[in-house]
Amino acid sequence: MQTAEELASLLGLEMAVAGLERLFRESDPPVSPGHHGRPVRVAYQGVRGSYCQEAATMAFPPSFLASEAFPCVNMEDAFSALEDRTADRAVVPAENSLDGPIDRNLDLLLRHPSVRIVGELILPVNHCLLSLPGVERSGLRRVVSHPQALSHCAEGLRALGVEVEEVSNAAEAAQFVAENRIADTAVIGSEIAASEFGLQVLERNFQDRRAGNYNRFLQLGMGLGSKTCSPPPRSSGGAHKTTVAFSLERGVSDLFQAMWAFESRGVRVTRVQHRPNRSNPVRLVQRDGVVGTTTYFDYVFILDLEGSDSHVGVQAAIDQLRAIAGFVRVLGSYVSACVESSSS
Amino acid sequence: MQTAEELASLLGLEMAVAGLERLFRESDPPVSPGHHGRPVRVAYQGVRGSYCQEAATMAFPPSFLASEAFPCVNMEDAFSALEDRTADRAVVPAENSLDGPIDRNLDLLLRHPSVRIVGELILPVNHCLLSLPGVERSGLRRVVSHPQALSHCAEGLRALGVEVEEVSNAAEAAQFVAENRIADTAVIGSEIAASEFGLQVLERNFQDRRAGNYNRFLQLGMGLGSKTCSPPPRSSGGAHKTTVAFSLERGVSDLFQAMWAFESRGVRVTRVQHRPNRSNPVRLVQRDGVVGTTTYFDYVFILDLEGSDSHVGVQAAIDQLRAIAGFVRVLGSYVSACVESSSS
Repeated sequence: MQTAEELASLLGLEMAVAGLERLFRESDPPVSPGHHGRPVRVAYQGVRGSYCQEAATMAFPPSFLASEAFPCVNMEDAFSALEDRTADRAVVPAENSLDGPIDRNLDLLLRHPSVRIVGELILPVNHCLLSLPGVERSGLRRVVSHPQALSHCAEGLRALGVEVEEVSNAAEAAQFVAENRIADTAVIGSEIAASEFGLQVLERNFQDRRAGNYNRFLQLGMGLGSKTCSPPPRSSGGAHKTTVAFSLERGVSDLFQAMWAFESRGVRVTRVQHRPNRSNPVRLVQRDGVVGTTTYFDYVFILDLEGSDSHVGVQAAIDQLRAIAGFVRVLGSYVSACVESSSS
Repeated sequence: MQTAEELASLLGLEMAVAGLERLFRESDPPVSPGHHGRPVRVAYQGVRGSYCQEAATMAFPPSFLASEAFPCVNMEDAFSALEDRTADRAVVPAENSLDGPIDRNLDLLLRHPSVRIVGELILPVNHCLLSLPGVERSGLRRVVSHPQALSHCAEGLRALGVEVEEVSNAAEAAQFVAENRIADTAVIGSEIAASEFGLQVLERNFQDRRAGNYNRFLQLGMGLGSKTCSPPPRSSGGAHKTTVAFSLERGVSDLFQAMWAFESRGVRVTRVQHRPNRSNPVRLVQRDGVVGTTTYFDYVFILDLEGSDSHVGVQAAIDQLRAIAGFVRVLGSYVSACVESSSS
């Protein structure tokens, strides 16, 4: 296992990481909740060597924050680890800018009201071509990875001119290649997989498109009563955000009103998502003038907003929202940190 | 293979199906595009025995429309089948009211501009407990299905008190049970899987929650020039809808304006979705007053609207939308048909 400094150097993002560390140290609660002389325990969703482990290690560098990270294969397990206090923090993947969101997080956040978003981390994707140490490109016969990573690297793979094979988990494939000393196969995976399993990085940023390919991760923690509703201290390096979930009494049609409640107060909406409203998944509405009803799918809407939930505009907008909403719940108010892509 | 009448009877939805058949016969183009004395060829996404085959068979009953349906394992294949004219229509799953949307359709619709939405079909979920003929409940030791179906039937499964096992595809499991004469294992699957593979239905509507659990399917066809932009003939039984996709020059923040363009003209928005804007996945915006930029994920938004695209309000709203949009594209204007759940 490498130190945080070695990792940062490997990633070529030294300055950015230093900034992130400062941001996360400054975030709420300041360093770690209730760790009485013991390391901050960070659960990450995925297996060892995953991109999420990489994100967790950047957010909580072992040497700086005396933290230790452990994997949770299922998203549910990361939530359970927080609830049973096995973990102080969880880091979970939330979205890729080319492939879209991972909605399961939102479903689980809605189902686990004690878990809150306490940070956001946006990282440029860095797909690495990994092989056994000493292997050269000319010795490769095959490249394996998850279909999403393969699709991000289609041109590079064509240029390489080798067999391409899909696997369900790139980090597990990297471990398999390392443990079974498979010399003719490279894996497209995270840089941290190289250090975890003793592989070499044949090429960093192997993806076709370096600009515009980002992963977004959420940092989760337990709501500790009303105190966690206060905003983290201002930090010039990161933007404050609030995520709010709500249902609408009259359905989707009123969503523009909900957005207007914020936008009219200068609070910018940066993301609009929806998930099934499981307690009330459809609304049957009597049709005007004709016999019968219309079946509308109903949703819980989730807005990401710029500003903390102590901002008067955010508070006033949430109050206004209550007039048209079935329920309103703040899922978190937090610092969002972004590492710019080196080529964008 | 059963006739459409036998199927409708099996499903206990005779009247509803008759109405659907009328609706789909009336939809645009009237019966089938360019079938010169040959059956309408319908591609459905999935394997034989899938819920999507069931939807395709309801939309295009073999005996009424002289249609023949064939499976496409991958969503891409259904789009290709339309483009190379192997299929006149494709039926693809789009959303479950409890589990959320299947976004892949939208990505493919955005990538295949010649393919259009020509119909929508909303069906109550009917999870059936399927076994070899003659098997009784007391003889079951195991129930297998896809995790989503198992989660819909959790209470029923607990009451049954047997081993539960996840499989990646319920229809394939049903075929396996049938072909290998596995008597101690039931499958939660579609009613059409019973007739396809010669299984018996031990229980219909085995799901815990009969009300509110719906699947939404899209019927796709090829855009045949400007003529397909005209609305299908009015049908009192089904609602007309239009789906429009667009990007926003100033990002998510302007979405409420896009919605207002429609709502202010009495055009109700029934669904708001977004997908990554792959040609421009992020926007970097200079921060006010501080050094650095903010990275915003950018999206293509997809609105479902009530009304056809020949409606003056819809047309005027789309014109207004162009002022704030990077692009605007109508993905389809079509009849939406819904079968009400028998218990809702």
